[in-house]
Amino acid sequence: MMYEQFTQFTKMFHNLSLILDKAQKYADAKKIEPETLGTLRLTADMLPLVKQVQIACDAAKLGAARLTGKDAPVNDDKEKTIPELKARLETTMGFLSSFKEADFNGWEERKITQPRWEGKWMTGKEYFHQHVVPNVYFHVTTTYAILRQNGVEIGKKDYLGDMPFKH
Amino acid sequence: MMYEQFTQFTKMFHNLSLILDKAQKYADAKKIEPETLGTLRLTADMLPLVKQVQIACDAAKLGAARLTGKDAPVNDDKEKTIPELKARLETTMGFLSSFKEADFNGWEERKITQPRWEGKWMTGKEYFHQHVVPNVYFHVTTTYAILRQNGVEIGKKDYLGDMPFKH
Repeated sequence: MMYEQFTQFTKMFHNLSLILDKAQKYADAKKIEPETLGTLRLTADMLPLVKQVQIACDAAKLGAARLTGKDAPVNDDKEKTIPELKARLETTMGFLSSFKEADFNGWEERKITQPRWEGKWMTGKEYFHQHVVPNVYFHVTTTYAILRQNGVEIGKKDYLGDMPFKH
Repeated sequence: MMYEQFTQFTKMFHNLSLILDKAQKYADAKKIEPETLGTLRLTADMLPLVKQVQIACDAAKLGAARLTGKDAPVNDDKEKTIPELKARLETTMGFLSSFKEADFNGWEERKITQPRWEGKWMTGKEYFHQHVVPNVYFHVTTTYAILRQNGVEIGKKDYLGDMPFKH
């Protein structure tokens, strides 16, 4: 079931990539410079759109790596344009899809730490629910909010993506 | 494990309630009218703060009810002030805490529908991952974004809440 949550992250990144397509069309129509959208923020002391996308990707990437004990690829965080951000999402989705369900065996009890925590740790179960999931959604939603507030025509359906309805 | 996700929703609502306390203090200090914060929006065609909190609560409330086959309490959606929104969060947390792990037995295969879907349905597993979780986080994050953009002094730590660090 936590494996399915990573499948869901991949779906959210796919949705976000389609949202970025709409943002690019908007920028083209308004003759907005290629790097401008990436600099937009909700407010001065929040991170710009480029960082929101990068951190959303990293939250999922590092989550999968730490919960399986594998190494995560290093990103140089040089993205500035919408096509570059779409490529970042694409490589992140590729990394997430490289995991098999069995790779997560024992994730709940795994001891998780990172340099920023200065020796402190939490269990994989705590880390996944209380850190990975809220962080991924925070940064995907904030990216959406920045674009919508700036006039890109997107709605909740773009965020949620296709629903697997049956008749 | 999906039971734990509802525990996590309760944590997020608790965090949001503390964020609303900071918003109330901010309103008091700036002599902002009691109902003003609830009317704020990120942009004209997005819902105001009051609705963001109500929908976050409903996404979790209806998720738990539909996945267990129980009835959800009906809310009249009359909240306007911060204390009223905090009370809404409180009753939602109370409802979520009324479930036991066994109540969710069979949730993955349960057939989920709602009037708005006009006869269409999805499985409980699909509904939970692709609808409930992204909706709860969308509306919690948007509430946070509205307040932060309007000058309330909050940060990512207020959103994530206390981390269960061990030494």
